[in-house]
Amino acid sequence: MNETLHVLEERRSVRAYRPEQIREEQLEAILRAATYAPTGMNRQSPVMVVVQDAVTRETLRRMNAAVMGRPDSDPFYGAPTIVIVLANRGVSTCIEDGSLVMGNLMNAAHAVGVDSCWIHRAREEFDSEEGRALLRSWGIEGDYIGIGHCILGYREGDYPEKRARKENYVYRI
Amino acid sequence: MNETLHVLEERRSVRAYRPEQIREEQLEAILRAATYAPTGMNRQSPVMVVVQDAVTRETLRRMNAAVMGRPDSDPFYGAPTIVIVLANRGVSTCIEDGSLVMGNLMNAAHAVGVDSCWIHRAREEFDSEEGRALLRSWGIEGDYIGIGHCILGYREGDYPEKRARKENYVYRI
Repeated sequence: MNETLHVLEERRSVRAYRPEQIREEQLEAILRAATYAPTGMNRQSPVMVVVQDAVTRETLRRMNAAVMGRPDSDPFYGAPTIVIVLANRGVSTCIEDGSLVMGNLMNAAHAVGVDSCWIHRAREEFDSEEGRALLRSWGIEGDYIGIGHCILGYREGDYPEKRARKENYVYRI
Repeated sequence: MNETLHVLEERRSVRAYRPEQIREEQLEAILRAATYAPTGMNRQSPVMVVVQDAVTRETLRRMNAAVMGRPDSDPFYGAPTIVIVLANRGVSTCIEDGSLVMGNLMNAAHAVGVDSCWIHRAREEFDSEEGRALLRSWGIEGDYIGIGHCILGYREGDYPEKRARKENYVYRI
């Protein structure tokens, strides 16, 4: 089977990670592939923020868990790298653009042997005053909307099973 | 280079097509890969509608061109296949889910040698009374939001050039 089709079909969302960090060359390849996601009118509205330090990770964990209403949980499942995707809110296709970046991150990760999962609630995080202050502290100016977090790492335990696809996903008319 | 990374980075949006139809096995591989795009909570909210007949294609062309305000144009650039992606409006992640399906369609297409482009304005098309009637005529019941059209075909002319990525796409904090 075509290798890329295999990657697209066999990528799974992984929800348990070992603490060991992914290799820098893997991260760079994943980020690079994501910058080539298409965007409406090639406006390239998204940005990616790579978080690997324990202090920032804990801040995000606390904020995300609070949005979820489970303050003691780790919504990032122990993954050692979090890539936050945001997009320029003034661009009409900002959610679509940011989602395609997320998709390329997840597919590229699987292509290089890194596990991943889309963790949501980035919008609530970065619409808050605390989130806006974080963006400013990172040097990100402008009105950005949080699209998602792509967590990256090496899984703990078995690879997730392939789930059945729904009936009627495709209509041939 | 890893074949999948190459596909993700070298896929381009193609805006000129030959009339010849893509091969059925290519279409099936592309659609199949798209059904494996991740969706929030695995709800699989999107559906795909494959349009290849001239009458329906002309209806979509007219509707899309009207939204664009250029009624005589062909927003689908002559592509012989249009895959409409819609998603269940009642699902909070419907736009993100549908966008990931669009992403897998475009990446899978490039993987098998088919050109593609995201054509927008599906939301306006299927929010209209005419669009809703089309969905019903195709047997699609429920409240669906149009996410995009993935046009598929073989390009006319040269492969588009790689465009520069913006500065500061990635922040390492």
